[in-house]
Amino acid sequence: MINPKVIERLILYRRSLLMDGEARSGQIYSHEMAVLAGVSAPQVRRDVMAIGYSGSPITGYDRQALLRALGEMIDPPEPESVALVGVGDIGRGILHYFQGRRPRLAIAALFDKDPDKVNRVIHGCRSYPVEEIARVVPSLKIRVAIISVPGFAAQDVADRLVNAGVRGILNYAPIRLKLPEGIYIENRDVILSLEKIAYFARQT
Amino acid sequence: MINPKVIERLILYRRSLLMDGEARSGQIYSHEMAVLAGVSAPQVRRDVMAIGYSGSPITGYDRQALLRALGEMIDPPEPESVALVGVGDIGRGILHYFQGRRPRLAIAALFDKDPDKVNRVIHGCRSYPVEEIARVVPSLKIRVAIISVPGFAAQDVADRLVNAGVRGILNYAPIRLKLPEGIYIENRDVILSLEKIAYFARQT
Repeated sequence: MINPKVIERLILYRRSLLMDGEARSGQIYSHEMAVLAGVSAPQVRRDVMAIGYSGSPITGYDRQALLRALGEMIDPPEPESVALVGVGDIGRGILHYFQGRRPRLAIAALFDKDPDKVNRVIHGCRSYPVEEIARVVPSLKIRVAIISVPGFAAQDVADRLVNAGVRGILNYAPIRLKLPEGIYIENRDVILSLEKIAYFARQT
Repeated sequence: MINPKVIERLILYRRSLLMDGEARSGQIYSHEMAVLAGVSAPQVRRDVMAIGYSGSPITGYDRQALLRALGEMIDPPEPESVALVGVGDIGRGILHYFQGRRPRLAIAALFDKDPDKVNRVIHGCRSYPVEEIARVVPSLKIRVAIISVPGFAAQDVADRLVNAGVRGILNYAPIRLKLPEGIYIENRDVILSLEKIAYFARQT
């Protein structure tokens, strides 16, 4: 299995190629990609080689072919649905921001405790009570979830999601979740991040 | 200077102590804190010792004294202002979520390019055109900023912020910023995170 740092860089390379002002065809050199992604050129060459693709020192990489190779690595083979639990300030912000940005990854179900927020369509997405996670998540074959509920509710939500088949979680709740082996998690506690950044900003 | 991982755990310990259902007085043991923060008990003891505080193997730590010691480490000595640039879906979500959560850290100025979003008060916070960063950031002694603008605008915003005195950045824009030495940055690219999590969720 590829290291998370490597996958992160591959995603970044693809992002840079897609966002680069240049035409999306033609050639690109590792040192140009390095500038776009903020890493070194040898790092780019090692990472690209690791996915079984290689360029030429003279002509560089073919952009289209490299984009295809990166896409095969990064993209789900089929369009994939994501669940979002907790339609509060952060959850709603992510829903509006993310929806429609990736062709094969979309938020397909919302869950909340608040009766006023469920059984509705919010930004094109159906919302359900959290009790329905056990039914809706498997029926949509959801394996990825975003948790944006208050800290006290997050462990219960995580347990429900994992029991329903979720294998990867993006956690905005301000607690560390206890999860079984093999569940991939990234924590995105906004308050913790700001406290940490403020600490380091004071040291300089 | 303390390692970022250590600071992150110290913030997490304080969070756990504050959120713990138990009364905030009395004693707490390292193994209890370890469970709350999702780390090992020896790790808790090493980290707490590193900030010059120590407990007793028999009675544990005094909660109040430990909270004070952690606060002295983590909290700014004076209330500190944060700038938020980009009042879109993510920026607005963070503003609503974060405001009022920490006594000594608050978003005090918003900046945007959109004429409809500036020179207003949004969620209790004054908004300005990005051109005013050079004036407003130093006048409020702001050293911490959140960037939640589109990728193409982020480098320009980062340059303005750093020139105005910002030393720590929480970056939600989908690009890697080029920053001078000594600026502390954390990247929070939502799309990158979801693509990465979806990749690992598929491998299990």
